[in-house]
Amino acid sequence: MELKLYVDRLSQPSRAILIFCKANGIEFEEVKILIGKMQHRSPEFAEINPMKQLPAIVHGDFKLFESHAILIYLASAFSGVADHWYPTDIYKRAKVHSVLDWHHSNLRRGSVGYLFNTRIALAFGLPLDPKASAEGEKLLSASLAMIESYWLEKDEPFLLGNSQPSIADLALVCEIMQLEVADEEDRDRILGPHKRIMKWIDDTKNATAPYFDEIHSMLPLAKEKLKELKVQASKQ
Amino acid sequence: MELKLYVDRLSQPSRAILIFCKANGIEFEEVKILIGKMQHRSPEFAEINPMKQLPAIVHGDFKLFESHAILIYLASAFSGVADHWYPTDIYKRAKVHSVLDWHHSNLRRGSVGYLFNTRIALAFGLPLDPKASAEGEKLLSASLAMIESYWLEKDEPFLLGNSQPSIADLALVCEIMQLEVADEEDRDRILGPHKRIMKWIDDTKNATAPYFDEIHSMLPLAKEKLKELKVQASKQ
Repeated sequence: MELKLYVDRLSQPSRAILIFCKANGIEFEEVKILIGKMQHRSPEFAEINPMKQLPAIVHGDFKLFESHAILIYLASAFSGVADHWYPTDIYKRAKVHSVLDWHHSNLRRGSVGYLFNTRIALAFGLPLDPKASAEGEKLLSASLAMIESYWLEKDEPFLLGNSQPSIADLALVCEIMQLEVADEEDRDRILGPHKRIMKWIDDTKNATAPYFDEIHSMLPLAKEKLKELKVQASKQ
Repeated sequence: MELKLYVDRLSQPSRAILIFCKANGIEFEEVKILIGKMQHRSPEFAEINPMKQLPAIVHGDFKLFESHAILIYLASAFSGVADHWYPTDIYKRAKVHSVLDWHHSNLRRGSVGYLFNTRIALAFGLPLDPKASAEGEKLLSASLAMIESYWLEKDEPFLLGNSQPSIADLALVCEIMQLEVADEEDRDRILGPHKRIMKWIDDTKNATAPYFDEIHSMLPLAKEKLKELKVQASKQ
């Protein structure tokens, strides 16, 4: 059955799915839906995902959206995926679900709230919102502190005291990588205090090499473009 | 193994878990953690859930939090649970995950944003925030419209065109039931246009009778208390 991934590498959950497929030898067609050109809001894409958000997949005639649901589906539908990505043990699996659910209202909400309102809004011709940005940063920083003090508390390299990554490591690390599009000083201020998280990002990168770097390779260019937009906006 | 549910019936995801256990004949001890008395913020409860949120469970020596993860775990760990609650078929299961993930950033976020800022904040001695309330109502109404036009689009009574409820029906309906603590006119304004949703609530209630009404029976009292607080606040 043919697998199509409807993604934009600028979208952090899109990257998690691309890396997951490549790291697990799952063949797919990458259908680029460019957020910057609002292609995800088109009537054609609404046929794939009525919520008009990325990522989405079509596998044979089965359509699915929501990145965590997609990662779980791919880990379950393709027999070659190693158990550590989505453990069959119900206790270990429950903990993976727990991190993924927590992610929605904490790390992801904070990260998106911060980045959209400090930078990404400009790409959509919207004004920046310093209050929403500050609220986003507060939640983002609290989430990073919780990852460091709780989810990564054990000596093993990955979340939940695991020696190998799960889909939760990939989802959360790709979210944090989005800070690459922020100013260096902002990124350093937010991530700098979290040495354990920096190590975890490296461990996840190494566990999925060379695909992690390959899929993230466009972030520096996106950062420069957003920087230009900020300079232009500050002149208006 | 002993199952303890750490819950407050005022919390919508707590109610979903209580109803799920009762409807499936799962024995448990209900450990009441009163949000109004800030018991969920205590160091003792942080030993159960370091995020200091409800609900959480302890099953034997296994601890778990995040309500969707809990519902999935309970449906998997107890052999008497009928398949429709959390289907083993990977396509059906993936769709249940998709609804649950969507819930986080849409219906739940809208509902909590609306209710906290129109009413519940008062119970914590915090001011109401009309702007945040309006944003919450906008997301809540858009989410209800999406449930009606997409998630419930088929002729069957439950989400995803199912003839019997899944854990997603329970999670989402319990969220919507929280509107019972709002003013009648507000609830009618928000829910009134959605006849299909009203029917779905009734179908979910009937499918889990008599437990649904039993677990929701304290909402009218909570509503009266919040109403009094609003009257008091308006006099200050």
